[in-house]
Amino acid sequence: MDFLPDLANETPLWLALVTVGVNALVGALQASIDDDHHWDIVGMATFGLLMGLGGGFIRDLLVGNTPVESLRTPWFLATVLGAIIVALAVGEHIAKVTLLVELLEALALGLFSVAGVAYATRAELPIIAGIFVGVVSAVGGGVLLSVLKNEVPRILLASAPLALVALVAALVYAVTTTWSSRAAAVAGIGAALVAHVATRTFGLRTRRVSDGSALLLTRVERRDK
Amino acid sequence: MDFLPDLANETPLWLALVTVGVNALVGALQASIDDDHHWDIVGMATFGLLMGLGGGFIRDLLVGNTPVESLRTPWFLATVLGAIIVALAVGEHIAKVTLLVELLEALALGLFSVAGVAYATRAELPIIAGIFVGVVSAVGGGVLLSVLKNEVPRILLASAPLALVALVAALVYAVTTTWSSRAAAVAGIGAALVAHVATRTFGLRTRRVSDGSALLLTRVERRDK
Amino acid sequence: MDFLPDLANETPLWLALVTVGVNALVGALQASIDDDHHWDIVGMATFGLLMGLGGGFIRDLLVGNTPVESLRTPWFLATVLGAIIVALAVGEHIAKVTLLVELLEALALGLFSVAGVAYATRAELPIIAGIFVGVVSAVGGGVLLSVLKNEVPRILLASAPLALVALVAALVYAVTTTWSSRAAAVAGIGAALVAHVATRTFGLRTRRVSDGSALLLTRVERRDK
Repeated sequence: MDFLPDLANETPLWLALVTVGVNALVGALQASIDDDHHWDIVGMATFGLLMGLGGGFIRDLLVGNTPVESLRTPWFLATVLGAIIVALAVGEHIAKVTLLVELLEALALGLFSVAGVAYATRAELPIIAGIFVGVVSAVGGGVLLSVLKNEVPRILLASAPLALVALVAALVYAVTTTWSSRAAAVAGIGAALVAHVATRTFGLRTRRVSDGSALLLTRVERRDK
Repeated sequence: MDFLPDLANETPLWLALVTVGVNALVGALQASIDDDHHWDIVGMATFGLLMGLGGGFIRDLLVGNTPVESLRTPWFLATVLGAIIVALAVGEHIAKVTLLVELLEALALGLFSVAGVAYATRAELPIIAGIFVGVVSAVGGGVLLSVLKNEVPRILLASAPLALVALVAALVYAVTTTWSSRAAAVAGIGAALVAHVATRTFGLRTRRVSDGSALLLTRVERRDK
Repeated sequence: MDFLPDLANETPLWLALVTVGVNALVGALQASIDDDHHWDIVGMATFGLLMGLGGGFIRDLLVGNTPVESLRTPWFLATVLGAIIVALAVGEHIAKVTLLVELLEALALGLFSVAGVAYATRAELPIIAGIFVGVVSAVGGGVLLSVLKNEVPRILLASAPLALVALVAALVYAVTTTWSSRAAAVAGIGAALVAHVATRTFGLRTRRVSDGSALLLTRVERRDK
């Protein structure tokens, strides 16, 4: 398996920057397309920063990896800055999220998740903690963003099963990494992509717990996220 | 005092797990009994995790005890997982909080508070910081949960004096620990239990600050929390 | 430049305490003047603590400076406690923010900002990360406070350019500190004061990003914050 890159433990810088940049762009665009609030440039920048780097901040704080990793080099902040400038320049014109952006988001979800497990493992945490840290890394930035927007984070409500996709990636990686970390990272990220495409194609959504059967997914006709 | 266990510095694992489990159960149940939002399984799990482990996360981050302690062994996450399964299985049937659960919550409040003071003391923080860390440990999980539910944390409003009960436990422990840490832990937790029962029995509530006399408590007829 | 104090790296304790105290007082007063919610003494204390110490907490967590600095000595918590008592005692009578308090707030904003850059630099973070940490130190406490009040943080909306004033201080300090840290600190804090007075005098406000030209400021007739 040596021909595969070890995406979880030695994420190539370009790949990390692409995923952070895409997340930051998606976050920053939320400021332009939201008609309910008058977000200013600081709001847009904060959304980009939290969506791009927030999950990693939470991960690094929980495992004690400080100063938080994305601040140790200038590249991550520079990438987020670039994403904010792109969001300012193109604004609502790319607000209708394209397929490419969405696939990159699913890739980012998987990569953040398996990398989170790897970070926790390197901090000698048990595997269940690794899975927790992986999922939190993947979805934490979005949750922080929702909190600042004064909204309930969508992943906590009956909706597209984003956190479960991150959980699948973390579980696949955690189970297969004893065999090969390189294969496990590719498998985990691949599982996230497949799970994301599948839930989107079939319009699967989580159910509200008070309805019972909360462990099952519901199929809806409209494919909205 | 050697016959007493040192609950603050060497909390027996079973006791820590019981209190975390009860808190997690109470948190997870908030997803089933809330008719205002459509919480899904991720929401329920997040509420359980934050209510069970959130206060400890904040405590460990503030005192620099990382990786955060409850992630270092699998037991705490496994206990929270069990609590979530119980919440899923029994759902609203135990939603009407029983006296036992409430007493266990008061016990958890006292235990988290005195343990928080002990952690801060071991990190060589001054006593006033220890009391702050103790109270934050005890009520921090609930505050995080409120933030994700997009609600004002109830302890900040005129309501049952939960944070003051935690403060009493921390103060009693901080004052008596110079004499004996073992006796102090038992005294602090006991004080929390007594204060909780007293405020509940007499229906005591905090007052809004803008009314003046904010340091006094108000007695209300109805005993709602 | 040796005759200047090194305000960023060796902030005199009295100056740090004055700025923390003023911030805490402004925070605590938000509980008395808010008619929308019934904040109690715990809410008032929490607002004072977060507004006084919250930005420093975030800074110390991000750069790995734990236990967080303001808890290592009793002076900061004692100062916040004093500010809360003052807020309780005088309440709404000083709620109409005076010019002195406002100037002290601008001073605090500048001092927190340049100190944040200095902390990040000592943790060997690159300059762009230092500027990020500086701004977050300066405005983070207020953001945490808004989150607990269940409000959108005002700095994220079209409003008085508070975060940009902090950014100016951080940038001025970052650029000039290679020459002299002492002069840079004075220059950064001075820049914050000048920028604050200027934006207030001319009634400058940030614009919503969805209007385009989000990098410009708008002049409004009324000088409300």
